[in-house]
Formats: sequence, structure tokens, C-alpha cells
Amino acid sequence: MGKIITISRQFGSGGSEIGKKLAKKLEIPYYDKTIIDVTAKESGFDPKYIEKAEQSTTTSFLYNLAINGIYTQPLTDQLFAAECKVIKALADKGPCVIVGRCSDYVLKDEYDCLNVFVHSSDNFRINRVSGGEGISREDALDLIRQKDKARARHYKYYTEKVWGLACNYDICINTAACGIDEAVEIIARLVK
Amino acid sequence: MGKIITISRQFGSGGSEIGKKLAKKLEIPYYDKTIIDVTAKESGFDPKYIEKAEQSTTTSFLYNLAINGIYTQPLTDQLFAAECKVIKALADKGPCVIVGRCSDYVLKDEYDCLNVFVHSSDNFRINRVSGGEGISREDALDLIRQKDKARARHYKYYTEKVWGLACNYDICINTAACGIDEAVEIIARLVK
Repeated sequence: MGKIITISRQFGSGGSEIGKKLAKKLEIPYYDKTIIDVTAKESGFDPKYIEKAEQSTTTSFLYNLAINGIYTQPLTDQLFAAECKVIKALADKGPCVIVGRCSDYVLKDEYDCLNVFVHSSDNFRINRVSGGEGISREDALDLIRQKDKARARHYKYYTEKVWGLACNYDICINTAACGIDEAVEIIARLVK
Repeated sequence: MGKIITISRQFGSGGSEIGKKLAKKLEIPYYDKTIIDVTAKESGFDPKYIEKAEQSTTTSFLYNLAINGIYTQPLTDQLFAAECKVIKALADKGPCVIVGRCSDYVLKDEYDCLNVFVHSSDNFRINRVSGGEGISREDALDLIRQKDKARARHYKYYTEKVWGLACNYDICINTAACGIDEAVEIIARLVK
């Protein structure tokens, strides 16, 4: 049976895009927000509450910029526990790509995983975040810093590990150095 | 002109072996202790003093275990400055592989580098460190912890950055997950 690929990523680094392309290439499922929905159904949490607690990437950066309290507030422990259950249930189904949600940590003891961390230069990320959304480069950089800080804090809170420390992952890739498609190729090689 | 490949590595992870194989594959020079010798000639430092200050990997692990004060003492600032000069002079000659010596940091502003960090599981490293040297697994693990702590401190002291933090490198590879030869292949792909 193949591996579960978990992808952690700096905001704007292209981690989600890599995850989707990789899943397509390997012909396996891709999960990110899906997890939230399933969690909601199984745990009885209101999906809107969960999304707010997650402070996950929304489809509109302007929305994120406009609201106050953009910093991630830690999920309640109950919600995290519910998410863990869902992540494991998805992993039980077979090889897949899971982006975010501390899935590397959640699956670490019981599953055969390839854990990936995707990061990039500020410039690469600012271009991605501001491009097409009509937000300024300054606002994009603010958003990047806020999102990364929130992800690091969330990861630390639940795993007691440092987010983005190389030794917590099997491979860490700078997309500014190698590009999205090459990153997909490298990860696919390692899975095989 | 091709890239300079810098390799930072956890002790026993195979970073030096990867560096040598990569240099051979790409037909470019490989530097590690060589730098020390050249530095010595250019700066007037006694090579033996430099090697002690560096606390670099010696050819005998038993020797390292036997001596007291195995923790790295920071290089004198003069010695570090002399090393920087030599590293830049080597990089000026053209594409090469440089292992250790904070070379990623030394070359960061003026040279086109691919910065690599190599790490591995304790088990993988213990097998490498103890294998063939006749030292116990417990002593090997002690040595690994001491060497890593020394490297992290040295890196922090000179660069003010965290050693092994993914975002300081272009690619970080866990050799326990992919093996030495695959690591060489991946890095070679990125150089091209």
C-alpha cells in the first residue's frame, strides 16, 4: 500500500497547488477543506464555526484583510480531536494527499507517510498572493506574516514541535528555487 | 555559470557522502577540510589549531569520544573571517560543492547558490556512526547529540539564524526516507 503524503506549507508558497497536482499525477485523493466539512458532519460542529476557528485560507484575501482578528485563534481541543479522527479515517482509506491540519503529526505513529514542507521567498509569495486579487504588495506581505505566525503557533500548540524545522519532515522544498512543477516531480519520485 | 552547492548536515546523516557523490556526478570540485588547509596557509593559523577549533568530523570517532570537551568551542572571529575569505575565493573559481562551514550564509549575497540541508532519523545515523567504528549505539547517539548541538550553536553564533530551519535552505532532505543516492539525484535535478 502506498504512502500518505502530508503537506505543510508557508502561506502563499504554492503548497496547495503542489498538493492538487501531485494527487492528480498519482491518481489519489486530495484533501484540505474537505476535512473540515466531514469533521463538521461527524462531530456536530457548525461548518462556519470550524472555518472561523481554523482561520484557513479563504477564497478572498480581501475578506481576510478586512476583518479584525486575523491571527489564528487556537482550535478548541475538542475540534482538534474531531479533526484527528477524520484525518485518520481518510488515511485509512488509502494513499492520499492531505494539506495542512497538522496531519504529519496526527498520522505519525500509525501510518506510512511522506511528510513535506513547502516554503518560498517573500517575493515569490507576494507575487502569488497579490496577483489576481488586487491587493497591494505591502498588504500581501502583512497577510503572509500573519498567516505564517498563526500556522506556527497552531502547530506548536498541538504538536509541541517547531513548524518548518527540517527534521520534522522528509523533504522541504523552496518553490522560489525549483518551481511548482519540479516540486511535484521530486515528491512523486520519493513516493515511488 | 553554474551554481555553488552548499551542504549543511546533521552529524551522521550522510551529507558529506552526498556532497562527494554529487561533485563527482556534476564533475565539479568538492570542498570540506580542504578549506581549512587553504585557510591555514593564507591566514597563518596553525592547521592543527584550526581543526581543533572547528571540531570538525575527524576520521576517528573513538578519538572524539576519548577526548574531553567534545562540544564545539566557537571559532575565533578572526578564524571565521579567514574562512569566509577562502570560501569566497573557492566559489569565485566556479561551480563546486562546499560542505559545512556556514557556507550558505557566507555566500548568500554575492553568489548563485543552491543551499541544501541533509538530516536523518536517529536510527539511520546511529547505524552510520557506529558501523565500522566499533562504538556502541549509545555512544553513537551521544556523539550525534553533541555534534548537532555544536553545529547548531556555531551556526547561530555566526549567522544569527536557526540551523536546520527549512526556510534557510532551498531543499532539505531526510536520508532515512530517500537514501543517499536518491538525495544526490534530487539535488542534481535542481542544479540543472
